Amino acid sequence: MKAEIVSVGTELVLGEIVDTNATYICQQLANIGVDLYLRHTVDDDQGRMAGLLQDARRRCEVIIITGGLGPTPDDLTREALAQVTSRPLHTVAAAEQQLEEFFARRGVAPTANNLKQCQVPRGGRLLTNSCGTAPGILLEHDNCTFIALPGPPAEMQQMLHDSVIPYLREQIRRVGGQELFTRTLRLCDIGESNTAQLLADILDTQSDPAVALYASPGEVRVRISTKADCEVEAMQRLDAVEQIVRERLAERVYGIDEETMEVAVGQALLAAGATLAVAESCTGGLIANRITDVPGSSQYFLSGYITYSNESKQQLLGVSDEIIEEYGAVSEPCARAMAEGAREHSGADYAVAVTGIAGPTGGTPQKPVGLAYIAVADEQDTICQEHYWPGTREQFKRRTSQMALNVVRKRVMGLV
Amino acid sequence: MKAEIVSVGTELVLGEIVDTNATYICQQLANIGVDLYLRHTVDDDQGRMAGLLQDARRRCEVIIITGGLGPTPDDLTREALAQVTSRPLHTVAAAEQQLEEFFARRGVAPTANNLKQCQVPRGGRLLTNSCGTAPGILLEHDNCTFIALPGPPAEMQQMLHDSVIPYLREQIRRVGGQELFTRTLRLCDIGESNTAQLLADILDTQSDPAVALYASPGEVRVRISTKADCEVEAMQRLDAVEQIVRERLAERVYGIDEETMEVAVGQALLAAGATLAVAESCTGGLIANRITDVPGSSQYFLSGYITYSNESKQQLLGVSDEIIEEYGAVSEPCARAMAEGAREHSGADYAVAVTGIAGPTGGTPQKPVGLAYIAVADEQDTICQEHYWPGTREQFKRRTSQMALNVVRKRVMGLV
Repeated sequence: MKAEIVSVGTELVLGEIVDTNATYICQQLANIGVDLYLRHTVDDDQGRMAGLLQDARRRCEVIIITGGLGPTPDDLTREALAQVTSRPLHTVAAAEQQLEEFFARRGVAPTANNLKQCQVPRGGRLLTNSCGTAPGILLEHDNCTFIALPGPPAEMQQMLHDSVIPYLREQIRRVGGQELFTRTLRLCDIGESNTAQLLADILDTQSDPAVALYASPGEVRVRISTKADCEVEAMQRLDAVEQIVRERLAERVYGIDEETMEVAVGQALLAAGATLAVAESCTGGLIANRITDVPGSSQYFLSGYITYSNESKQQLLGVSDEIIEEYGAVSEPCARAMAEGAREHSGADYAVAVTGIAGPTGGTPQKPVGLAYIAVADEQDTICQEHYWPGTREQFKRRTSQMALNVVRKRVMGLV
Repeated sequence: MKAEIVSVGTELVLGEIVDTNATYICQQLANIGVDLYLRHTVDDDQGRMAGLLQDARRRCEVIIITGGLGPTPDDLTREALAQVTSRPLHTVAAAEQQLEEFFARRGVAPTANNLKQCQVPRGGRLLTNSCGTAPGILLEHDNCTFIALPGPPAEMQQMLHDSVIPYLREQIRRVGGQELFTRTLRLCDIGESNTAQLLADILDTQSDPAVALYASPGEVRVRISTKADCEVEAMQRLDAVEQIVRERLAERVYGIDEETMEVAVGQALLAAGATLAVAESCTGGLIANRITDVPGSSQYFLSGYITYSNESKQQLLGVSDEIIEEYGAVSEPCARAMAEGAREHSGADYAVAVTGIAGPTGGTPQKPVGLAYIAVADEQDTICQEHYWPGTREQFKRRTSQMALNVVRKRVMGLV
């Protein structure tokens, strides 16, 4: 079953608010196996809305609209629906009565605008709004079902779960369709093109489970998805592909689905019963911030040293004058000394240190913007890596923090 | 000039990520007076993408596409552009050379799929990507300009500002349209309804310059906009309204346009020739991270102490046993001692400290989740504020960091 989503609101096309409604609806629909290929956003204009709906109904069986059901003159979703289906609007008496009662309980009378909300194109029905005044609309017309939901997220979500999901599940069953199941593997320390090469055969030729790649700074995600009649069958197929991916990518797979790198690091530390300290120069607190985004991180995170100046590296972490003078603050010896100093001063089992040049200024031909050293110290040894990530300051901080956390993860798990 | 935005990516139509790119592009385009009525999202399918572009080019003069320019087989934006304009793809030799040099600096060779990124439909040109490998595409065809930008937000934003905005401004001037000029004043420490009350007259009645309010967690923005033939004229009108807003909202105005709170703090410190240290418990590095997001922050930021455990508060900042035992780590005396300790140990002119309960666990009836103390120490005195922000861990960290930076800003500027 194919569906398209239409978000209505001038504030959305002007970029004044982020459209989280569409994302939410897409998630919920994808979860029950509805096919989603297109999504649209339109301003509060009846003509443009009707044009968009006219195009969409030729491509799909379900159109879900959010917004434009309110009482003000620029709420025009029901008028656009009437226009595109050539079905006149009429008032649903029972809804009008409910609305009058709703206002009566507040000691006021509904305005004419409010009563407009009880109108529906002929043949359609109103969907109950348990959190607000604007009912939704469900209208089956010429092999396409139009479903209009209110714009406020809480009202939309409630109505989606109360009325829309059950309706769509029923439709999917009626046409003998299958539910979709997905799993996402998260990778670090490998780029999108190398991942694509290592998985070329299953990316190019395999259609069930389908495998796709997504990249963001410091991370590649492998999404595996399949449609099946039951969860057990789906899980078996996802497991089989996951195993292939893990065989080829090994310890680069750090997490599954919503498991971030900071969560993976926390799990590794908890499993090892170990504690962590961080010493940050170029990432300026980002590593500590990510670690402490995880609820319960106080169980393994002891302290962070953000040593931006040379003096603070010496004073807080005991980095020697010789290292600063001979090698400079952005150097392998300095990263190692920072990690060892942080471990010693904090009493933590592991300490990770980063020093580098975030830019945009401060680079030299020998030490360009994008250069980073990452060191991890533990009881046995101190390891250090050199990296080079040219790009924006923000990207540099993100990538350096991601890799630093990954080195901690691998060290704690005995992988490096 | 009418534009439509097309976001490309299966992960977007499946609701796996929120489409912040489209929101950002809409904002920036609206700011220069481009008319926006429609926005679309499509999965990684060349045929559907081409169909959407075919429909859109009949309605508008500019189509901005994001995503689908990467090196993998499911990146199909350039192929869709070639299809819809019937212009074959060819490789731009100079871009190929740049890409080879980029990879050579990392000591690797580009793969065949990387080189695909140097292709452009005949008659089009590549837009430089200063933060990544995928160049953009600009193609004028039959009264419509197609502009394709990469999906990663940092790359898209940079390219938008470097290449697209200047191009569009030039197009607007060429057709004799009036440019839109906007200025956004950013406020802290006041809510949306109070701001609306203080500005009621100009919000309700004034149409040129137009004034509108937008709210996000910890911040209200006042957007002033006017259309004009020349910048000087526009600036005079914007200046006049800005002056009125500043008279009424005084020190709550902390910044203009893209000037974040961390930038405002940096400017205040630079103007005063002063340095800063931070001591963070509940924000876990977020304050330091925000400060060091600003290029050049090493001029005023000395060091940060992330003291998550009680021991680290005592050891790194010299908070006394008595304070921890008598008042606890989340208390005004502890915040004050942390700020004073950080100032003393770092040698900075100012130190800000935060301690609180981020949740979701760790709250008590006396000290609930959402309680925060913010202290700022300088040569003369230490000031402390108590706040209560129930909400998610992420919201709490964000709000606490925003207010802590605001207290620093006001203290350095002598406003508190």
